[in-house]
Amino acid sequence: MSEPNPTDPADLRFATVAIVGVGLIGGSVAAALKQRSLCQTVVGVGRDLKRLEEARRRGLIDRALTDLPEAAKSADLLVFCTPVDRIVAGVREAAGSCRQGTIITDVGSVKGSICDALAGTMPAAVEFVGSHPLAGSEKQGFEHADARLFEGRVCVVTPVAANSRPALDRVAGFWKSLGSRTLEMTPAAHDAALAETSHLPHIVAATLAATLTPANRPLTASGFRDTTRIAAGDPDLWTAILLANAGPILDSLDRFDERLSALRAALAENDAARIKEFLLASKIKRDALPKLHADA
Amino acid sequence: MSEPNPTDPADLRFATVAIVGVGLIGGSVAAALKQRSLCQTVVGVGRDLKRLEEARRRGLIDRALTDLPEAAKSADLLVFCTPVDRIVAGVREAAGSCRQGTIITDVGSVKGSICDALAGTMPAAVEFVGSHPLAGSEKQGFEHADARLFEGRVCVVTPVAANSRPALDRVAGFWKSLGSRTLEMTPAAHDAALAETSHLPHIVAATLAATLTPANRPLTASGFRDTTRIAAGDPDLWTAILLANAGPILDSLDRFDERLSALRAALAENDAARIKEFLLASKIKRDALPKLHADA
Repeated sequence: MSEPNPTDPADLRFATVAIVGVGLIGGSVAAALKQRSLCQTVVGVGRDLKRLEEARRRGLIDRALTDLPEAAKSADLLVFCTPVDRIVAGVREAAGSCRQGTIITDVGSVKGSICDALAGTMPAAVEFVGSHPLAGSEKQGFEHADARLFEGRVCVVTPVAANSRPALDRVAGFWKSLGSRTLEMTPAAHDAALAETSHLPHIVAATLAATLTPANRPLTASGFRDTTRIAAGDPDLWTAILLANAGPILDSLDRFDERLSALRAALAENDAARIKEFLLASKIKRDALPKLHADA
Repeated sequence: MSEPNPTDPADLRFATVAIVGVGLIGGSVAAALKQRSLCQTVVGVGRDLKRLEEARRRGLIDRALTDLPEAAKSADLLVFCTPVDRIVAGVREAAGSCRQGTIITDVGSVKGSICDALAGTMPAAVEFVGSHPLAGSEKQGFEHADARLFEGRVCVVTPVAANSRPALDRVAGFWKSLGSRTLEMTPAAHDAALAETSHLPHIVAATLAATLTPANRPLTASGFRDTTRIAAGDPDLWTAILLANAGPILDSLDRFDERLSALRAALAENDAARIKEFLLASKIKRDALPKLHADA
């Protein structure tokens, strides 16, 4: 693919992309941009210049900056990959320095609190479009960056009233250029769905890990490992996600508890038919999940 | 490795091994025996001759028999790989036809109910030693057999009063010859531990899958997939396992519920410090799990 041509109005790619927060996700966005030659310059923005310089040495980014307004000045697109509790402040700080027509997006796992806080606060020249690529890992740091992380994955774009169709389309186009399919959902609909498909599983996995008696550690096998894998995720990141989406998560937990109580009752009552019916319905739901790239 | 020599008293290997139930686990035992040249003859025993003949064509077994007593006559070791609710009846049926010195073992995920039912019922010439290799898959059928399934895994051997040290050692030696490490535990201690490390995770994974709203299916990613993987297991097999270990499983569920309630309360109270503390403790437990062969 050729480099983007900013003087060609039909070329909707971004010449300079600033990635704010160069960790696993930010690093993977950078790696994908580089590998697919999707922009001229990738600017990495963070608080630790040494880490950013290391990312530059690895070829993930072209410039390393700790000054967010400075980075905002030069960027056509800013992608916030910081923890969800730091996105709003970062976007606000950057927005004042952006050039006319700059688009800002993010990868936060929660959208309502971010989109609500930013609604109506952007300067006229700048537009914020929320997005959430459903891709990640329990691993941390750009050392685990993967240029293919977004391939075949869904990225949710969350329009709000303030958004223009061209900006929404350019952000969706950006994620498509990294290999993702995009879906549009309201921030609230996104948060209700992700509470069930991502935040509840995190809580359940963490609780399962918490329940393990250390002496039983040698008796864990692949079932326990898979079921608890996401419990290895960063506690700070996940605390912020859970708090930012507490209402929908508590609703999902209610539904989970209801079903768990039903299965427990069937087991306590030695009711083989009800247990089998439950397990069969669960198997059917599990077998119907969409296949992912990484699947065997 | 050379073929076992039944006339050499120092050669503790088994010349003829009968595998009762040639599915994923039984087929993997067969494949490992073949690949490692650990016996002269592998007899596959099952109810469906066509399936057994197919396993024979694939080179997993040498003989296909639907007559369990007939198979028992020729075997030095019988390995029951049938669902847990069919092991006791099968062992009883086989035992009467075994030659002097034959050893019978099984791979059941629950040991108390099996070992208790068989205690004191074996003919003098035959010994039953319970075992449970902690290896498996949500997949079914010998088509998914894997000669390396037991490599690096733990196999629990569960002695009871009736067992002799030589028989326990020979069964442990058998699993070691397939690449496993062995642990000895009482059947009750095994069941209490596996309730926590395997049966509870199955219940939790099935409940998580049950909680999924079908419309949210496109919004599942690798976290949901991993956390629910084992919910794809066979509902019949798992109904039998859960019922056979209901007491310890209900105890584990109590401990899980207690922790889940604590995390829910912290979330409902917007208590970042308590949530983070919980998630950090879970992460430490998860990170401390033993590494498995299959891990990246």
